[in-house]
Amino acid sequence: MSDEMGIFEAMYNCRAMRRLDTKPVPEELLVKLIDAANQAPSGSNAQNARWIVVRNPDVKRELADLNRKGVEAYVGPNVDNPGSLPHHSEEKRRRMVASVIWQMEHMHEIPALIIACMEFEMKVDAATMAMGGGSIWPGIQNLLLAARALGLGAAPTTLGLMDHAAVTKALNLPETMAAFCLIPVGYPLGKFGPVTRKPVSEIMRFDQWS
Amino acid sequence: MSDEMGIFEAMYNCRAMRRLDTKPVPEELLVKLIDAANQAPSGSNAQNARWIVVRNPDVKRELADLNRKGVEAYVGPNVDNPGSLPHHSEEKRRRMVASVIWQMEHMHEIPALIIACMEFEMKVDAATMAMGGGSIWPGIQNLLLAARALGLGAAPTTLGLMDHAAVTKALNLPETMAAFCLIPVGYPLGKFGPVTRKPVSEIMRFDQWS
Repeated sequence: MSDEMGIFEAMYNCRAMRRLDTKPVPEELLVKLIDAANQAPSGSNAQNARWIVVRNPDVKRELADLNRKGVEAYVGPNVDNPGSLPHHSEEKRRRMVASVIWQMEHMHEIPALIIACMEFEMKVDAATMAMGGGSIWPGIQNLLLAARALGLGAAPTTLGLMDHAAVTKALNLPETMAAFCLIPVGYPLGKFGPVTRKPVSEIMRFDQWS
Repeated sequence: MSDEMGIFEAMYNCRAMRRLDTKPVPEELLVKLIDAANQAPSGSNAQNARWIVVRNPDVKRELADLNRKGVEAYVGPNVDNPGSLPHHSEEKRRRMVASVIWQMEHMHEIPALIIACMEFEMKVDAATMAMGGGSIWPGIQNLLLAARALGLGAAPTTLGLMDHAAVTKALNLPETMAAFCLIPVGYPLGKFGPVTRKPVSEIMRFDQWS
């Protein structure tokens, strides 16, 4: 039916790929990712998602520093106690933390850091931020699937974006814009593979939850 | 490469399909949609998205009534003044409002109303709701793309879910769960077609926004 990767094949094999090569990604492919993201739906079809593709070494370094602070705050208390989160086996948790730390150490060397932003009609505050999710995350998912289909690794993270003032300065955002997600993109060092998820019987009901 | 619909073909042709036939959708396909949604990423891989597929006529009627209230509050003030939203031409806006109203009038007859929910570790309040977006909307986008690939129509809406207490009662949700999005699903009455979006040059920058 198609010479593209199949839609279900992409979804079922779209692991978070955090270990990425320094090899540059052609600009044409980066634009293709953003164009795919831009096809996603938005509330009232307002199309207010905005995308910044950071390749400049100085801006990447600023984002990497912000991410380091976020990762240390998040992972720090759990790093020697990876079994403390209830939803993962200790071994799986340990592997995830290791890859988050790899990403933190190497973020400034990753070829492209894509920032998913929203443009609002008013100055951004905490209440605005809370409203935006449904108009930005569908596009992020399109971007991740498109990256998978093009052989690029990617993994969304929000840990480096908590300091809104610092992010605004690093990316020169107007006061009506806010950054929601950072997606490092590059050629993967590891192998693509299937995701593992809970069985559908655990996460689905008919008619009512209970 | 694949006997599935291609990933880019699905993304670029995934219109909001609101006018849907009453013809039932096989349960196997409904489960396939939820399984596809369940492959999406979630914060810390917590996998706390939950999905309710409503086919029961009484529950559908309750959700349709809640949606009617939400649509009337949203569309009401603009229904005779469709040019008042800046991001659409008047004609395009008028067509969108007409299809939202069609959906409102027929929602109780649509074969399946899928509710995307999140399960939290604590009792849900407004602050919890604001946190969940990045762990539920990627799955909703997977579901919409999967529906497109399977020849099913779908369109996400949040207008009927504003009254948390009423939704909790209709769906028998525990106090740790909240509904984020309602996606009516069925065979389309109209034709699938390409989405129209702003050109990528308007929504993308390199390195910094300005």
